[in-house]
Amino acid sequence: MPLPPPAQPGQSFVEIDTPALILDLDAFERNLVTMAAYTQGHGVRLRPHAKTHKSPEIALRQIAHGAVGQCVQKVSEAEILVEGGVTDVLVSNEVAGAAKLDRLAKLARQARIGLCVDHLDGIREAAEAAARHDVVLDVLVEIDVGGRRCGVAPGETAVRLAEAVARSNTLRFGGLQAYHGTAQHMRSIDERREAIERAALGTRNTVERLHQAGLACAVVGGAGTGTFEIESQSGIWNEIQAGSYIFMDADYARNRQADGTPFRTFEHALFILTAVMSKPVPDRAVVDAGHKTASVDSGMPMPFRREGVIYTKPSDEHGVLTGDPIALPHRGDRLLLIPGHCDPTVNLHDWYVGVRGLHTPDAHVESLWPIAARGALT
Amino acid sequence: MPLPPPAQPGQSFVEIDTPALILDLDAFERNLVTMAAYTQGHGVRLRPHAKTHKSPEIALRQIAHGAVGQCVQKVSEAEILVEGGVTDVLVSNEVAGAAKLDRLAKLARQARIGLCVDHLDGIREAAEAAARHDVVLDVLVEIDVGGRRCGVAPGETAVRLAEAVARSNTLRFGGLQAYHGTAQHMRSIDERREAIERAALGTRNTVERLHQAGLACAVVGGAGTGTFEIESQSGIWNEIQAGSYIFMDADYARNRQADGTPFRTFEHALFILTAVMSKPVPDRAVVDAGHKTASVDSGMPMPFRREGVIYTKPSDEHGVLTGDPIALPHRGDRLLLIPGHCDPTVNLHDWYVGVRGLHTPDAHVESLWPIAARGALT
Repeated sequence: MPLPPPAQPGQSFVEIDTPALILDLDAFERNLVTMAAYTQGHGVRLRPHAKTHKSPEIALRQIAHGAVGQCVQKVSEAEILVEGGVTDVLVSNEVAGAAKLDRLAKLARQARIGLCVDHLDGIREAAEAAARHDVVLDVLVEIDVGGRRCGVAPGETAVRLAEAVARSNTLRFGGLQAYHGTAQHMRSIDERREAIERAALGTRNTVERLHQAGLACAVVGGAGTGTFEIESQSGIWNEIQAGSYIFMDADYARNRQADGTPFRTFEHALFILTAVMSKPVPDRAVVDAGHKTASVDSGMPMPFRREGVIYTKPSDEHGVLTGDPIALPHRGDRLLLIPGHCDPTVNLHDWYVGVRGLHTPDAHVESLWPIAARGALT
Repeated sequence: MPLPPPAQPGQSFVEIDTPALILDLDAFERNLVTMAAYTQGHGVRLRPHAKTHKSPEIALRQIAHGAVGQCVQKVSEAEILVEGGVTDVLVSNEVAGAAKLDRLAKLARQARIGLCVDHLDGIREAAEAAARHDVVLDVLVEIDVGGRRCGVAPGETAVRLAEAVARSNTLRFGGLQAYHGTAQHMRSIDERREAIERAALGTRNTVERLHQAGLACAVVGGAGTGTFEIESQSGIWNEIQAGSYIFMDADYARNRQADGTPFRTFEHALFILTAVMSKPVPDRAVVDAGHKTASVDSGMPMPFRREGVIYTKPSDEHGVLTGDPIALPHRGDRLLLIPGHCDPTVNLHDWYVGVRGLHTPDAHVESLWPIAARGALT
């Protein structure tokens, strides 16, 4: 039995139950346009990451704006996107074991499906699964360009894996996965540029060695919302995998642009609507959004347009607002929080409450989109 | 469309897909018995907190072991428990606004329903909702005994609220909610004892003033898994609201007993089963459980019985294992993690995979219980 949504289309903003995940449709649509224009203007493809939104509704809107497909991290996310009408999905991640690879190979009967590898066993397993289901899977060799997570070292090791892929009848060597995760949240543009320039050295070297080995690198994928401009201008990466740009969160807002001001290429389009359920003393207001409503792994959610008010001390179902007592809201008041980290926050909710005219007197619920891949872990 | 579960009853342990939330049924049942015996032996009632498990299946098992009902934090959790057959539910939290209170009052036609108040407006709203639905709601006045979250100060303020409750025709004054959240995770028994002894002073004083005002305090509720022995022995609290005891998590395991050894009244019964999807270098194994599988708000999940292996650097869908290279698992290997914090971790999953004989060669899936109130936020 699915949980009832906190609102219905047509309701006014004040009728939305709390807590709720609010999508500012106007800001979201402007973010879609901004990223589409940027990537098209720089001659790179956009394959946005669905791990951020987990929603076929949003995926199809990104594709309508020119995106070539979607990235996911999990086979179950790919299944939900394909069922929702997405025809080109890359699992930008390693997939281990026959059970998961069988599910992925089955999907390749309905859509173009790719995955990443960083081990000969992974190549063998993927090739066998593709053979069992009589399909061909696209394969990117993942290289570690500085994030120290998955991926082999750039250079010869990667070339050997690519050659193993190319030898398979059921795999198609697609190119390289070269994503630098930790660079996304380096605060200054200089740090981010230096990290991506270092990543570019190894990536370029690997592309050249692949070329010498007779292997064309159709895709060089990577980049996130924090660094996509650097990869887009590099001449090396040609497929941008940013996800958070559609929403923006408090953590990305701490990144700085070249002039030292906060990163503001994209607008905050995702919010948690929360209400004060208790105000026992004048300098403490307790809201109905805690760990189960807003992820704090990258810092606290931030009250939106509430100067002097700080969200602090979350427990599972409570958050405490402190700060300037004059600015603190009262019992029953509502306010918007900018999520600290959008991806795991989205994964706590079942519905996007799409609001048109947010921050205006005419704010109303226009759409209700299920977060269909919420909890898609396998 | 609900997501498919990661296992089916009857399967062997090795057939469970990853990541999955594993309930060790044997340890869980022993934890049920341990807490039931303790509370019954000390003449206090047990009203376990369903915010931890979010499952009518587990609630009914606690009640079968003598629990008088359940606590929840949210109206939507109460709805799901009542639908699942629980007949006595306390919202151990403030509930603000007519919309939520109407839902709660409707439930009181099917079950005994209580809630907490810490403001005259909350009392008025609850009384009006109960009148609209022709029911009586039980009401506890919440006092702040040191947690600095919700609740009025002990003493006269609480008595005035209790009198306001008692004057209402549609509310029944039930007693006091006196929960000290921050005391649960103080590491030494001396710190926890001191915190609860301070809490007891204000609570006892309030009970006495209520008595002088002619108000009997049938319920003095509170306590958690970290301090329940202290409240049970206090002679003041008579209803224990512990939740985590059924599962134990890594954070509670950091609490110390009187002799300085780790808290081990209860056994670890909840685990995340995860698999290594990448091992790009000998001293780093990457598992398929990150922020969306295991909450890190109270510290990292801990590898179970993997001496020398440390879980670190989680990202949304990845966790990195480091430590002794000889002990690190290989690509495709599986291991169990003890959640850092059980409540928000449970809330990330849709199913408990109940395993009989975990840690034995005969380990197999016996039950599959939906986490029915997962995501019940309103």
